[in-house]
Amino acid sequence: MSMNQLGIVKRNIVRADKAAVEKLSRFGVATIHEAMGRVGLMKPYMRPIYTGARLCGTAVTILLQPGDNWMMHVAAEQLQPGDVAVAACTADNFDGFFGDLLATSFQARGAKGLVIDAGVRDIDELEKMGFPVFSRAIHAKGTIKATLGSVNIPVVCAGALVNPGDVVIADRDGVVVVPAAIASQVADAAETRESFEGEKRAKFAAGVLGLDMYKMREPLEKAGLKYID
Amino acid sequence: MSMNQLGIVKRNIVRADKAAVEKLSRFGVATIHEAMGRVGLMKPYMRPIYTGARLCGTAVTILLQPGDNWMMHVAAEQLQPGDVAVAACTADNFDGFFGDLLATSFQARGAKGLVIDAGVRDIDELEKMGFPVFSRAIHAKGTIKATLGSVNIPVVCAGALVNPGDVVIADRDGVVVVPAAIASQVADAAETRESFEGEKRAKFAAGVLGLDMYKMREPLEKAGLKYID
Amino acid sequence: MSMNQLGIVKRNIVRADKAAVEKLSRFGVATIHEAMGRVGLMKPYMRPIYTGARLCGTAVTILLQPGDNWMMHVAAEQLQPGDVAVAACTADNFDGFFGDLLATSFQARGAKGLVIDAGVRDIDELEKMGFPVFSRAIHAKGTIKATLGSVNIPVVCAGALVNPGDVVIADRDGVVVVPAAIASQVADAAETRESFEGEKRAKFAAGVLGLDMYKMREPLEKAGLKYID
Amino acid sequence: MSMNQLGIVKRNIVRADKAAVEKLSRFGVATIHEAMGRVGLMKPYMRPIYTGARLCGTAVTILLQPGDNWMMHVAAEQLQPGDVAVAACTADNFDGFFGDLLATSFQARGAKGLVIDAGVRDIDELEKMGFPVFSRAIHAKGTIKATLGSVNIPVVCAGALVNPGDVVIADRDGVVVVPAAIASQVADAAETRESFEGEKRAKFAAGVLGLDMYKMREPLEKAGLKYID
Amino acid sequence: MSMNQLGIVKRNIVRADKAAVEKLSRFGVATIHEAMGRVGLMKPYMRPIYTGARLCGTAVTILLQPGDNWMMHVAAEQLQPGDVAVAACTADNFDGFFGDLLATSFQARGAKGLVIDAGVRDIDELEKMGFPVFSRAIHAKGTIKATLGSVNIPVVCAGALVNPGDVVIADRDGVVVVPAAIASQVADAAETRESFEGEKRAKFAAGVLGLDMYKMREPLEKAGLKYID
Amino acid sequence: MSMNQLGIVKRNIVRADKAAVEKLSRFGVATIHEAMGRVGLMKPYMRPIYTGARLCGTAVTILLQPGDNWMMHVAAEQLQPGDVAVAACTADNFDGFFGDLLATSFQARGAKGLVIDAGVRDIDELEKMGFPVFSRAIHAKGTIKATLGSVNIPVVCAGALVNPGDVVIADRDGVVVVPAAIASQVADAAETRESFEGEKRAKFAAGVLGLDMYKMREPLEKAGLKYID
Repeated sequence: MSMNQLGIVKRNIVRADKAAVEKLSRFGVATIHEAMGRVGLMKPYMRPIYTGARLCGTAVTILLQPGDNWMMHVAAEQLQPGDVAVAACTADNFDGFFGDLLATSFQARGAKGLVIDAGVRDIDELEKMGFPVFSRAIHAKGTIKATLGSVNIPVVCAGALVNPGDVVIADRDGVVVVPAAIASQVADAAETRESFEGEKRAKFAAGVLGLDMYKMREPLEKAGLKYID
Repeated sequence: MSMNQLGIVKRNIVRADKAAVEKLSRFGVATIHEAMGRVGLMKPYMRPIYTGARLCGTAVTILLQPGDNWMMHVAAEQLQPGDVAVAACTADNFDGFFGDLLATSFQARGAKGLVIDAGVRDIDELEKMGFPVFSRAIHAKGTIKATLGSVNIPVVCAGALVNPGDVVIADRDGVVVVPAAIASQVADAAETRESFEGEKRAKFAAGVLGLDMYKMREPLEKAGLKYID
Repeated sequence: MSMNQLGIVKRNIVRADKAAVEKLSRFGVATIHEAMGRVGLMKPYMRPIYTGARLCGTAVTILLQPGDNWMMHVAAEQLQPGDVAVAACTADNFDGFFGDLLATSFQARGAKGLVIDAGVRDIDELEKMGFPVFSRAIHAKGTIKATLGSVNIPVVCAGALVNPGDVVIADRDGVVVVPAAIASQVADAAETRESFEGEKRAKFAAGVLGLDMYKMREPLEKAGLKYID
Repeated sequence: MSMNQLGIVKRNIVRADKAAVEKLSRFGVATIHEAMGRVGLMKPYMRPIYTGARLCGTAVTILLQPGDNWMMHVAAEQLQPGDVAVAACTADNFDGFFGDLLATSFQARGAKGLVIDAGVRDIDELEKMGFPVFSRAIHAKGTIKATLGSVNIPVVCAGALVNPGDVVIADRDGVVVVPAAIASQVADAAETRESFEGEKRAKFAAGVLGLDMYKMREPLEKAGLKYID
Repeated sequence: MSMNQLGIVKRNIVRADKAAVEKLSRFGVATIHEAMGRVGLMKPYMRPIYTGARLCGTAVTILLQPGDNWMMHVAAEQLQPGDVAVAACTADNFDGFFGDLLATSFQARGAKGLVIDAGVRDIDELEKMGFPVFSRAIHAKGTIKATLGSVNIPVVCAGALVNPGDVVIADRDGVVVVPAAIASQVADAAETRESFEGEKRAKFAAGVLGLDMYKMREPLEKAGLKYID
Repeated sequence: MSMNQLGIVKRNIVRADKAAVEKLSRFGVATIHEAMGRVGLMKPYMRPIYTGARLCGTAVTILLQPGDNWMMHVAAEQLQPGDVAVAACTADNFDGFFGDLLATSFQARGAKGLVIDAGVRDIDELEKMGFPVFSRAIHAKGTIKATLGSVNIPVVCAGALVNPGDVVIADRDGVVVVPAAIASQVADAAETRESFEGEKRAKFAAGVLGLDMYKMREPLEKAGLKYID
């Protein structure tokens, strides 16, 4: 292990299995997170920049320096069709590291979108382009190109560890990271989980209570729940 | 008064007068809050989860524990048509305590929506269902069912005291709580207040200044306001 | 210089050149901020109250006291067609200082919108009226009319210095302030900047990398960037 | 119930039993909160303004308006020896509502300290006077005296409901509110709780693990905990 | 007026009158802010990095870029005995822009301390050196030296406009800025204000109520205050 | 790789070299972070709970569930002399997961302290015991023991990835994590770095400017810095 994590671009990364990525793309973030055992979520401050944004793809990770988007351009070259750029920063920073020009470049490379623990700008154009972004902030503030970060090293983005090649799924409920090694397994678990939802929904709609469906009355009583009038 | 506020479900609560609730449903949150003398508002961090969400109903209150939505199922049974579930938590917590399955259950019980000082998920589905939610956060994070809270005890939700049976009104401007005992009185005051608005609006639109309409020039001068060029 | 900055209304202010304002209205906030040398932005917590809000005009500045919107009415009289009201507060305050009645008055005076480092209410009505507001918060909380602030003195609004007569432009990316004295110069620089964007965008769309377009490979190597496999 | 909660001063309030207050003063906030069943705490943003501040007394409640400390003077007259002033505000506000002059007045009335969901100033003097304050902020910002609030009505302070006469205890761990009606009961429960702590502490110090002391190994195994090497 | 505010160092600045600075140094921040008419305060998030920090001096202003402390070194040369360095940043940034080495340099130049709307580090050493700093954050995060900011231009620091040469006073209650042109006037007003405090304090200590001292009973009654039992 | 990260306790972890840990304990957090190339820091919201707290040791990691400190007891058994407990939580949570009893247990095991991305309580006792804690919050709020987390899996704590066995150093400037594999290397680099500081400090104290010591005048001029009068 080298001491220095900055100034590195890893070119060959192992991306998650394509079929697993495709299968994961069918499920929502909440379902996938549950299927993984309730881990892997980014912080709730990560929000879509426009209503309807949604993405699923394999992570190309980027470590940025505050106020500096140089590594975005370095990352562009590493993007392959189906990838999602996932950008962390060495400090809390709300600058607009990304706008419509970079989005055009990323889209030309086949990228599915961007997840960034910082700010972005040109929101109107990004929505028109249909380039989904999940970010911590929207800010017109521009950045410089002076300091090295890294591309495709493990990063912590909005509280979640992301390794290059991991699957990242984002929708209106948030952003979840699925390690590449368990992508198929998680996709299967998500499918199983979702297959039970229809039946449950029908029962709830028919007026069955969760208290009865999940047989909670006895454990609640044991726990000491008291009904008073 | 018992020492323990947890582990209690109160079944018979006195709901605000139906006619008063209906009348209150015609006014906006800002108007009702003014009609009550500028009190009763929840904190401004409570936001609708989708554009167009709006609700008015009688409160069934829920006290949750962090990361635990067991009491949501207990509360479902206490909901009657026209009720709004109002959920507080014993700690600041942004987990997703509520999603489309619980919403289906609540809707089947006739509930008008949810106000929750915590997080929710399945936003797309909730919007499609037309189930209005006002929350502090959107977060895919799931919860467990292990610890007792209470249902229908007085709770502090987003800074406002809510007693079971109180009227809760929420729209794009925020959430307001009207104590059941004064619901009619407040509804009348809101009506009176609103009846003056049309005339004022017409005057403003015609170019009359508030300075003149409200006769502010003299008190401003008395207070020492100086015009310079 | 007088010691007291409160209780003053300046009537004659020098507004930025009309042609410059018109020209600036064609560009986005991000472009204008870049054209000025990356200064002049308000904090990213300033957000449009509805999707599609956008404004450009000359500032009539307002200094408010917490919980008190008296100066809004004083300011109304100073508004001229093409102006934007820019309201700061002597303390962090999220109250709803502004709603549809004041908006009707401001609109009748020809104002283009409001930028306020505090809260507003009646969001639905404001959207229907097409009266754009950029604010720090949405809050139904009403205010009183008891204490003097000032109109048309220099104010710090959301971290940016605004002098009366400055050009204020706001869109989905944020809010930027252009000093009146350099409005034409900035408008020209924005135009120049934007004229290069089409070509860049076309290149990016065609797959050219920023690494090559901006000749970054050499400086990156000099800075020590290492590619590994 | 009257519609208007503002502009009221209740003179005769029922204070918690003196012996119970004295007994509660011997225990820490964490212990008392546990003894009550884990409720009654204010938000953790309430902090002592100096190291070593600590208070215990009966609440005289104050509802303030943003930027206005008029009611502080009204409240002074209602303070009796052993009371703690508990101030809430109708809006989030960080102004300095309280300083050394008011503290001198409160101290002269026999007050034990102040808990305020807003800002205070003159911190150095307050520390020298030994007048403990727990607040949300420290801010030199002064306030006006123009709008009515109330004294000795129920208030929500930092997320906790406080009725006049309730016992309020604050130390380095936070602030807890004990309803007057259960003060003795809670004091007894706190005593019982604390009586077990010495023995536990001794065992822990001797190297006994909580796993064994609380017999957790079996339930952990049942819950599925796996030890790997 | 030049378009570009970055990349400028102004060498000759007009510092506030020395006698006025000395006089202001005798008063607290709260008193000075009141004497100026309740303006001039920085946000309450600006806190001393150690207990007992206090400073008063003439501002040498610094505009920093996020993550870059190059201008600190440029500013050092402009510091004269009695100056206070006042650093703003073009973006919200919590990096540690300043530590014990720069403090040694600033102290050698005769600087009285630092006010910075960002982070600092080496807190232990700074306390040992007796170099007072008021900052937004404490953070070990280092910075680079790559991008130009400015020295001695007007800056907005923590919400307050600071012109080079202005008097900056900071103590446990916060930070206040007194424009150079009115420094003497404000110092006199602060002196007058403070001269009344001793008498008031004595009266309060003797049990006189503010209600009587400030003759508030009548206006309170007029405003509608009601006493109930 | 297993899908489930919860419910695991890893017993045998590889701790960083003892000599390296000892050597690292001699340097401050800022120095170590610089020596590692400006990475490895936790967020600046992590603060010591008392002045003078400082720790250095090998990490035993803990993943907690919101409002639940069961894993703290499980972790106690895994602590060895010289370890530091490092606790992350699956959600943002400010509850008091840790107090003086657990501290007694941890201390009996030889632990050097605790770093926790959540709340703690019993601050007075912890200070008296000399048990250093760095936390996100202080909160009396108690927790339950109902849900499994994990011990000695990689965790993200306050934005930093921590593997079991890594060296964690915390002082008044914050918290830094040194991967076990590079602990010696970083300790050497920190030593080298610190060896230069004395000379620099002497020069600064003698009035030498950073502009000259670091030969910045030329690059500043090249970057376009302009001096005006």
